[in-house]
Amino acid sequence: MTIRISSRIKLASNREKKTIVQVGDVSIGAEKVVVIAGPCSVESREQMLEVARSVKASGAAMIRGGAYKPRTLPYSFQGLGVEGLKILAEAGEETRLPVVTEVMSPENVGIVEEYADILQIGARNMQNYALLKRVGRVSKPVLLKRGLSATVEEWLSAAEYVLAGGNEEVILCERGIRTYQKLTRFTLDLSVVPLLKQVSSLPVVVDPSHGTGVRSLVSPMAKAAVAAGADGLLIEVHPTPEEAKSDGPQSLRPSEFRQLMVGLNPVAQAVGRSL
Amino acid sequence: MTIRISSRIKLASNREKKTIVQVGDVSIGAEKVVVIAGPCSVESREQMLEVARSVKASGAAMIRGGAYKPRTLPYSFQGLGVEGLKILAEAGEETRLPVVTEVMSPENVGIVEEYADILQIGARNMQNYALLKRVGRVSKPVLLKRGLSATVEEWLSAAEYVLAGGNEEVILCERGIRTYQKLTRFTLDLSVVPLLKQVSSLPVVVDPSHGTGVRSLVSPMAKAAVAAGADGLLIEVHPTPEEAKSDGPQSLRPSEFRQLMVGLNPVAQAVGRSL
Amino acid sequence: MTIRISSRIKLASNREKKTIVQVGDVSIGAEKVVVIAGPCSVESREQMLEVARSVKASGAAMIRGGAYKPRTLPYSFQGLGVEGLKILAEAGEETRLPVVTEVMSPENVGIVEEYADILQIGARNMQNYALLKRVGRVSKPVLLKRGLSATVEEWLSAAEYVLAGGNEEVILCERGIRTYQKLTRFTLDLSVVPLLKQVSSLPVVVDPSHGTGVRSLVSPMAKAAVAAGADGLLIEVHPTPEEAKSDGPQSLRPSEFRQLMVGLNPVAQAVGRSL
Amino acid sequence: MTIRISSRIKLASNREKKTIVQVGDVSIGAEKVVVIAGPCSVESREQMLEVARSVKASGAAMIRGGAYKPRTLPYSFQGLGVEGLKILAEAGEETRLPVVTEVMSPENVGIVEEYADILQIGARNMQNYALLKRVGRVSKPVLLKRGLSATVEEWLSAAEYVLAGGNEEVILCERGIRTYQKLTRFTLDLSVVPLLKQVSSLPVVVDPSHGTGVRSLVSPMAKAAVAAGADGLLIEVHPTPEEAKSDGPQSLRPSEFRQLMVGLNPVAQAVGRSL
Repeated sequence: MTIRISSRIKLASNREKKTIVQVGDVSIGAEKVVVIAGPCSVESREQMLEVARSVKASGAAMIRGGAYKPRTLPYSFQGLGVEGLKILAEAGEETRLPVVTEVMSPENVGIVEEYADILQIGARNMQNYALLKRVGRVSKPVLLKRGLSATVEEWLSAAEYVLAGGNEEVILCERGIRTYQKLTRFTLDLSVVPLLKQVSSLPVVVDPSHGTGVRSLVSPMAKAAVAAGADGLLIEVHPTPEEAKSDGPQSLRPSEFRQLMVGLNPVAQAVGRSL
Repeated sequence: MTIRISSRIKLASNREKKTIVQVGDVSIGAEKVVVIAGPCSVESREQMLEVARSVKASGAAMIRGGAYKPRTLPYSFQGLGVEGLKILAEAGEETRLPVVTEVMSPENVGIVEEYADILQIGARNMQNYALLKRVGRVSKPVLLKRGLSATVEEWLSAAEYVLAGGNEEVILCERGIRTYQKLTRFTLDLSVVPLLKQVSSLPVVVDPSHGTGVRSLVSPMAKAAVAAGADGLLIEVHPTPEEAKSDGPQSLRPSEFRQLMVGLNPVAQAVGRSL
Repeated sequence: MTIRISSRIKLASNREKKTIVQVGDVSIGAEKVVVIAGPCSVESREQMLEVARSVKASGAAMIRGGAYKPRTLPYSFQGLGVEGLKILAEAGEETRLPVVTEVMSPENVGIVEEYADILQIGARNMQNYALLKRVGRVSKPVLLKRGLSATVEEWLSAAEYVLAGGNEEVILCERGIRTYQKLTRFTLDLSVVPLLKQVSSLPVVVDPSHGTGVRSLVSPMAKAAVAAGADGLLIEVHPTPEEAKSDGPQSLRPSEFRQLMVGLNPVAQAVGRSL
Repeated sequence: MTIRISSRIKLASNREKKTIVQVGDVSIGAEKVVVIAGPCSVESREQMLEVARSVKASGAAMIRGGAYKPRTLPYSFQGLGVEGLKILAEAGEETRLPVVTEVMSPENVGIVEEYADILQIGARNMQNYALLKRVGRVSKPVLLKRGLSATVEEWLSAAEYVLAGGNEEVILCERGIRTYQKLTRFTLDLSVVPLLKQVSSLPVVVDPSHGTGVRSLVSPMAKAAVAAGADGLLIEVHPTPEEAKSDGPQSLRPSEFRQLMVGLNPVAQAVGRSL
């Protein structure tokens, strides 16, 4: 079986020129494995700053946090919005770490671009073409999560929308696909990591927190992702997961994150990378 | 096994008051099975008017056609836009049939609302919450297609976003889910038809054209959908499917659509309905 | 999209000679839709005879019941074995209806062949090649259920094992595939009914009881199956489903089965068939 | 999300006593990661001996090869049968490595037990209960592959059949599940590795050859499996994959296998294991 993707996917599959996304001092797609950590939702200034300082101390290269949250029901906490963006930016400044956050609609791209260093497109919006076209015109990198049941070709085609718009800095993020499995929230499909590295020039990161939905599986799957060749990781960290407004069951405590970083280092080295 | 859905789905599951969506003379969710037919894309005035007249003559109750097309690749035909909306409206006026068309972004809701009788939210946008909130504020009905891998609860929760916005006229549309099957484009999940009728008050229609992706399967699955209790059907019809700009392989020719309507009538009567 | 199956599937796809399986007075694959009804498991002589008489009175053409049960755990009720076969045969004789029952291993094929009119291969054994080869040498028809995640080609290839052994009487049975859906036990894939009729010469029956796992969905999906072109149905019926040793939640009560048969008749006629 | 499995799964989930399967000098489930390598099918004495010597030289701890092959179509090469078993046993003796091979039917268990050190139950037979009961009575370990769409609970329940029969030496093998993905043959679900280690006492090995179906993905996924905590690997190796009678596209050449072993060693050490 040889891997053949459609020849119409032109920009994302330009393998001669490997894409390295540069954000401040951080290079995504280069030798270092980039760990991006933070809470699912920005819930308060205290929570965000506490997590940011703690993950920085453990070695995270970037921080994450949601200000606009895609929630299944309209009655659930929808995020702090602009207030959340400001808190996130403050946490980034204090720790001197770049920040990544999700943008959910074309009309918010402007404000998110103002506060964030990387704009995340969530799984549910992977084929929201109006949004993809809009972020194709921003001057900041885009982290494009895989749709819940997207094929590799559909995912690369979605990236193509951003690239065709003129934004060449796209990072792909595997975050689990929907299968019949019930004991995990999704099925983390790590085989796409080496596969994408072979057919595409874009960096690939992995989100084992959403991919499993189970705290005790996050660390082993983070190590597996790095062993498979991932260029980075997205890890959810919360000071008190049992009180989190979203995704508590899959969030690591700061101490667990520190342990993960310690354990991750030799794995990165084993495959010729570093943290 | 009893069917239990989350008690947080409040508006879509109010089964005491069965929702009947009224569009001109057409009632969706009442005794008559409503057949909505037309091309995947509005390609030209001639094509659209020809199809509209023909499906009207065969007994269609509404017409459909895409002006804004969600295409996997940015290089594919993206639809005629406002020009397409105008052609569609003209076809509706001439045939005196209401029209349904897809809207893909919040910023286009206003213009689509001006020309169309029902606004369609496509499968890829089922969890595009900015769009759902926006169509929750329009005064026209919304046809909400099921996401490619959406559970029933996620689908009803998406409807909840529209309903919570104040728009009570939501029609659910099953259009096939993604499975491992390769000989069909998707797997049409007809069991959701009786299931939704039991847990929700909203009308349910079925799209066997996208659901199968195979012309020769459209008619038998249309009949099966009606036998299962569907309130309506969406059928793709094109004068010359081999020349269609999108979805040709699943489009019926006008003569095939006429035959389908003849064969559908006794099935509708067999389950106490009419066309 | 045209339906193309591997040219190596030779026997099952011989479409010129449509296979009609004859069992006593019953023809499967001909004009009449054959309804096969009975309990999941043969639990006692009283239970089996009561169900057999009742489904016969409602118009069933054959009876079913399991003597050897494939159970997920070794601690669950495994069926009455030979005793169950004898009860089933007695019920068949008394009602003058042919009987179908599952055989789970090559070594039991001989004894099951002695008592049953059709040998069923269950979904879990669809690719149990030793078993398929063995039933390829019996002189009674084989009802081959689709595997839980079998493609159409794999299913026809499994049939090919039986046909290649010399047994030309194979009936295919769709019984639901495994998807991410949680409110139903499986996802009944009715599109395979017209698809198989187009690529194969074998009769196709549908099991909406296992396919949905939910009693209230069995009747609408049985009607949908017939509208889609099914040659027959397998329906689980139990006098007191709440006390059933297996599959109670999906079993119809005798009165519900009677109602189903009344409602099914006009649907069969609507597609040019009869019961 | 906490991982809860049915309390009826009693034997496979006895986590207090960690199962270590001993085969000659090899311990599966202990500190060493056990690499089992060899061709998909035993094709000839020369082929098998060549592969055996080569994988032994590269550090494999056991050899594999199929004598009875589960093939989709009856017309495909079905394996050399007893002749294949003898060749395999000879290869094992010469290299002093234990051998594992698949058994497909209860009647062949006796002969396979005679020649093999571990009996493999293939994915298609995971719920072949007659076969599971039969291998529950042998005195050699059983390697139980996960069914193509088996949940973790169904898999452990299948193991329960073997354990309940008195055979306590069961090794679980993840080999990829069926999803909608098309660029890989299956989707390797590595999250079950840490999950099974948490809910079960049985050793867990991974087969990245079948799990991906793509040669260039085998090595990265083998490393990922070890990083996730796998107790062993099954790797297909063939001297000339382009001429293999089965599974050529996923087989490593001997030189590629040697490279894999060199790269695997530091990954094993990074997670506190060795090869």
